Formats: sequence, C-alpha cells, structure tokens
Amino acid sequence: MSLIRSWVASANAETTPFPLNNLPCGVFSLGDDDPRCGVAIGDMILDLRAVEAAGLIAVSDAPVFAQPVWNGFMALGRLAWADLRDKLTALLAEGSNAQTDVEPHLVAAADAVLHMPLHVPEYTDFYAGLHHASNVGTMFRGAENALPPNWLHVPIGYNGRASSVVVSGTHVRRPWGQIKGPTDDKPRFAPSARFDIELEMGAIVGTASNGPITVQEAFDNIFGYVLLNDWSARDIQAWEYQPLGPFQSKATATTISPWIVTAAALEPFRHDAPERQVELLDHLKDCGPMLYDIDLAVTLTPETGQTSTIARTNYTQMYYSAAQQLAHHTTAGSPMTVGDLLGSGTISGPEKGERGSLLELSWGGKEPFTLETGETRSFIEDGDTLALTGHARGDGYIIGFGPCNGTVLPALPDPYAR
Amino acid sequence: MSLIRSWVASANAETTPFPLNNLPCGVFSLGDDDPRCGVAIGDMILDLRAVEAAGLIAVSDAPVFAQPVWNGFMALGRLAWADLRDKLTALLAEGSNAQTDVEPHLVAAADAVLHMPLHVPEYTDFYAGLHHASNVGTMFRGAENALPPNWLHVPIGYNGRASSVVVSGTHVRRPWGQIKGPTDDKPRFAPSARFDIELEMGAIVGTASNGPITVQEAFDNIFGYVLLNDWSARDIQAWEYQPLGPFQSKATATTISPWIVTAAALEPFRHDAPERQVELLDHLKDCGPMLYDIDLAVTLTPETGQTSTIARTNYTQMYYSAAQQLAHHTTAGSPMTVGDLLGSGTISGPEKGERGSLLELSWGGKEPFTLETGETRSFIEDGDTLALTGHARGDGYIIGFGPCNGTVLPALPDPYAR
Repeated sequence: MSLIRSWVASANAETTPFPLNNLPCGVFSLGDDDPRCGVAIGDMILDLRAVEAAGLIAVSDAPVFAQPVWNGFMALGRLAWADLRDKLTALLAEGSNAQTDVEPHLVAAADAVLHMPLHVPEYTDFYAGLHHASNVGTMFRGAENALPPNWLHVPIGYNGRASSVVVSGTHVRRPWGQIKGPTDDKPRFAPSARFDIELEMGAIVGTASNGPITVQEAFDNIFGYVLLNDWSARDIQAWEYQPLGPFQSKATATTISPWIVTAAALEPFRHDAPERQVELLDHLKDCGPMLYDIDLAVTLTPETGQTSTIARTNYTQMYYSAAQQLAHHTTAGSPMTVGDLLGSGTISGPEKGERGSLLELSWGGKEPFTLETGETRSFIEDGDTLALTGHARGDGYIIGFGPCNGTVLPALPDPYAR
Repeated sequence: MSLIRSWVASANAETTPFPLNNLPCGVFSLGDDDPRCGVAIGDMILDLRAVEAAGLIAVSDAPVFAQPVWNGFMALGRLAWADLRDKLTALLAEGSNAQTDVEPHLVAAADAVLHMPLHVPEYTDFYAGLHHASNVGTMFRGAENALPPNWLHVPIGYNGRASSVVVSGTHVRRPWGQIKGPTDDKPRFAPSARFDIELEMGAIVGTASNGPITVQEAFDNIFGYVLLNDWSARDIQAWEYQPLGPFQSKATATTISPWIVTAAALEPFRHDAPERQVELLDHLKDCGPMLYDIDLAVTLTPETGQTSTIARTNYTQMYYSAAQQLAHHTTAGSPMTVGDLLGSGTISGPEKGERGSLLELSWGGKEPFTLETGETRSFIEDGDTLALTGHARGDGYIIGFGPCNGTVLPALPDPYAR
C-alpha cells in the first residue's frame, strides 16, 4: 500500500502522521464552540459536523457527528465505518471535484483543542505481553515462577476504572495510597513513591455483543486503536494486589491518544502473533494475523526540558491480540458495549531498551537509568512529562496516533483538604 | 422509630416490606407503557411520573421521574432526596388531605413489571466480610494463611463488570469458561460445574465525587442500598484469578433487588462495625455507626419446587462499611459517578448456617448440604432458583428490599452457535 495523495498538501508529507490513508477519528473544539467529531488530515482537521450539515456526507438518517463522542457513529456498524472511509477518501483525494465544497470545513489542527474522542462505558486492562509478564513475574516471584501457570493459556485481564480514562495532555496528580514496604512493620497512607507508566495499545469495541463471540467476530467488532498509558503506582499495587488484583494502584488515570486510528487504516500492517509456546484452546486460536506492526516509543521530559527516549518497542511483541482478548472477555456471557476500551497490557520487547514501564527499565528501582540530561530515574519524578508515540510505517507514508502524554503533578499536601 | 401509618391500608400491615417508613425507589411499567420511576407503598406502587406531571411534587425545574432510571433524581443531591421523602410522606400519611389527588396514581404492584432501577456506570465488588474471607482463605491457602496480610488494613476490592448487572427475576445462563482442575494436566473450555452465589448488599453512589473523600463524606454520598447476588463460577475463578483477580468468573451476571432502599429509610437501623482487630489508618477510621442491622437470608428452590432456606446472616457481619469502601475507592483520585454500585462482599456469619455462598456452605464441595426435599447440593444445579431476602426490623414494621432472585438455566450446548 502506498500513499493516497490528497489535495490537502500537508497530508502528502512523508512525515505527517495523518495522510489520507489514516483518517483517524477525534473530537475537537475551537474557541467556545461545542466539541464535535473530526478527522485529522495532514495538519488540518476536517469538521465532520459541518461536512454532515452541508450534506456532503450522509451515513445515517440522523446526524451523528455533532455529538462530542464517536460512539453514535460507531454504533451504526461496520458497513457505515467502511462507507465513511470511502466517502472521506473520495472527498479528500487529489483531483476530487468536491475540494471547493469541502475546503471551508477544514480547520488548522494547531487552533483546535482535542477532547476525549469517545465515551468509555467500561475499561478492561490485560497483561498479555510475554516479556512484560516475564520481567514483572521475575521481579515479584523469581525467574522460575515468572509466568503464572495460566498465562500461556488465557489472556489474563482485569476490569479497570473507566471514569479515570483521560485524553492526552491531561495532567496527572501523583496519588496517595496505602503503602507497606517489605521492611515496614505496618502500612501507612502516603504519596506513591513508585509512580509509573505502562506503554499499551487500547482497542475500542465498535460493535456491541451479548454472549460469547469468536476471535474472528471480535476482530471484526473492533473499531480502532489508540495509544494507552496505564499509569500505575507500584508501591500501592504491591500491597493491595493480593488476592483480587490491582485496584487503587491503577485508578488515578489512564491516558489515551486523542485520535482513534481505525482498524481499516491499520489493515496493511496486520502481523501474526508470536509462535505459540503451548497450543491455545480452540476458542482462542489465532485465525489470521491480528496484531499490527506499529513502532512504539516512550519519552520522558523532566521539568527542566530535554526529552529522552527511554524505550522503543513494537506492538507485534504482544502474545495475545486484542481480538483474542475481546473473545475471552465474552466467554462467560458478559455484554460488551460500544466504546468499551481494552488495554493490551504493557508492551515490552526482549531487550532492556524495549521495556514499556519504568518498573522494568529500572528493574524495580535497583538499576536506575540515565536520561539525556544526565539525571537518573527509577520511577517518575514530579514535573516529568511521559509521552507515548506510535507509528505504522507504509511505503512513503506513516500512520500515527498523535500524542499520548501527561505531566505528573506533585501529590496534594493533604488529599482531604477542600 | 415506629410505623408511620398511611391511608394506603396495605402499607400498615406488620408484614409488608414497604410501609410508609420505607418508600423504596424502583422503575416499573404496566403493559406497553414506558418504564418510569415509582416508589413501593404496601402492595401498591406510586407512579412518580404521574404524580410529578400532576404537579403534586416538584423536586426540580425539569421532570425527572419520567426517566426509566433514578440517576437523574439522584444527581439532584441530598437536599432533594430529603425533600422527596418529606413530600411523599406527607402525601401518603394517614389523614393527608392529598389522598383524593394521589390515589389515582397508585397502581397494583401485582400488575407491574419491575426493571433495573438505575443505570450502573461502574460496578465494584469488595471482599470485606471477615468470616467469608477467613473461610475462603482457609479453603484456598490453609487456616494459617487464611487472611491476606493487607485484609485487616484495607477494604480489598476489584472492579466488576457493570454491563452484567441485572434486575431480580432475570434468568442466569450457566457460563462456559476456561477451567483446569487441580489434577488436570491442561485446561479445557467447558461449562462451569461449580456455579455459585454470593450474598451481598450493594451500595449506590448518589453524589459524584472527583478526588479523595472522607468516610463521612462517603457515607453522605450513598443514596441507598440493594440486595446483590454476585454470581460466581468457582472453577473458572480458581484457574484465572492469579495474579490479577477474578474476571470471567464474575462476568456472567450480578443480580440486584428491584427496589433501592434509601439510606434515610435505614437510618434507624444504623449499627457499629465489629471491633477492630488492628487499628485502621486515619483516613479509614470509623466515624459513627455506618453498618445497618439487616437480617439476610438465602433460599434455594430446585426446579421441582420446595424452597429451602440455606443461610441466614446479618449485614452487621461486615468488617468494613460501604462508606469505608467508598472512601478507599477514591484515595487514588478516581472520579465516582452517580449510580456507581459497590458490592459489599459476601456476608457470612461465624456459624455454618450463616454462610453467604455455596462454596462455604458445602466447604468447597466436600460437605454437600441437604435441602428440604432431601436432595443435596454442593453448587448450583440447572433449574435452581436462588433468592436473597433482606429485612430491617423496626417497632411494628419492617423495611424490605423485595426479591433478589435468579433461576439458573443450563449452559448452552455450543456457546458459539448463533
């Protein structure tokens, strides 16, 4: 697949994350106007509310793009998703005779504020990267018990807290929590001293289901993907997670990129999952390449300025695809809702520089790593900005997600002060 | 507190769960008409949509009771909650001069269909009953490691799946899941053979929050309570729950009673939590009696008919109150939303007949118990109806929740058949 040229000149630049091949879905506002749906194209955003109102695209009887979330459009189903992509591609392609009509509805991305692109009814986080699970397991339980017995048989996941999902750029306040260090004789309530990120991809359920669905159906039900940072307080987690899993350690915030990249845009980058170490049960078996070749990176920028890239990895490092995770999610009959978000789990590669969390990069704080500034880090310091980036690389174009970043603010002096 | 007499004669019967002291909040429909808000009074339901439309009560500028959920009303805040209770009490009290106006808006409860009384944005389940935690811990980890080290310091909880919460009367389909018995050499995908209940109370967040709140604030933010059955597939749970907690084992369904009993109605029944075995940290300390004296029971009715009461216990057996759970829920900064549901955790007493799950009653299946019919049970059989009941007992009146029941249907022969 090569670049689809657009009459929006900036969309043809080799370095733009938003060529016409991408058409990612976001929600934006200008000034005091209401947030509404748009797609990114080069350094512009196409205002879909306006395009719909002008009668240039019609995907349903009632308008859907004036809403401040994509849920209404997603609920129209897969045929509508393909229909919109076809129509937008035709409107924006080089040589389109619609240019004069469409051009007034382009706004400069630099002038827009980006909002949460969707309403997330429920959020689930998985633990489906083999290197991450091995690293964390080795630190917590020793190398011989690194992988739990179930890990190679089932995509381990837990329900997260949807109300804590925020869009890139939202500041993240260091949380307080109950903490008991290994040598403490009792727990205390204190700010987290081991606040961390998790580099993940998020898959967005675009089609509701009610009962068990196959891996292929799950793949088809996924509307698109975002970058996802599952902020994690490791000291709170260590004390609370037995026996029922992480709770407040993961409740402060989960940051997603403002642009949902559709499964359609990622289609050329599909990639097989790694070889299976044990055969999966039939209902979880791979049925085609359902991961994507997406280069991922984490940067850390201290308050003083200079940015360091602290990890580089790729989404193909996942052991389970989002489709397998979603299929597993439905096995016991739980309904899935349009907008449900599934975090992939931390994506780490086999090498040290490919680890998607500070916990792994600093090996539990025992091996602090050095930034470009010469400073070292074990966990996040106040004022640090952590950013995720992701790009699928085509022939002469790239598919990007936009930023996924957050700056960590100091803990409140008294969390109960009003 | 004694009975407040009503001109609705059935509300004065000593045995009605719905005297004027109660006024629980539900959603009902008659025939093809839309579901709307109502309160139970004796064997009648007062149609609040109609009462509001007739101008007999006004709690806000815009109508709220035509909605098919109580969330809109709850969001009006505590003053509105008290205001509605005062107004309804005045309208329905013996001697009220509004009787002639109100009477046409009463419908026979027997004619009504009850629906989910609220939209549950997110559902959290706790593990906060000491006897239950000790019993389950003893079975899973031995008597010496029964309680996890954190248990006496923090209300252990995990995020559940809100989309699986259903109202009493909804049939529950036995789930399939990945299961590996202790002597199996590999897992298999099969219907759960150890399907179970958990007798719980559910607390409903009526006031949103955004950041840490105190135990007292949490208490004040709780609108009311429901009975809650957290259906649990023990064989799926045993295989999946390490290291991130229960997931598909709890995803089939959680059943709640159709009536939300308000905190105001339960006020006379407030009760201290049990003595603390270790001192709680300041932010979780008790600040008044925040449990309630509510008698609870579980019945099991096989397909063939005769009902057995299999457990009797009381909500005062909880170690942590819902207020403490909700306060803990907010420590890391997670926003809470109107309608969020918090399951108490299984409520078991110290004696064998006081255990709130079949897992405990049959001691992991090793000690099957006998029903009135002479049949035995270790776990739920197809066709069994499990029902929870709950009553606070005042002077000449009781406060009830209505039924909380579900009949278990056989597993599908092929969960992927369409």
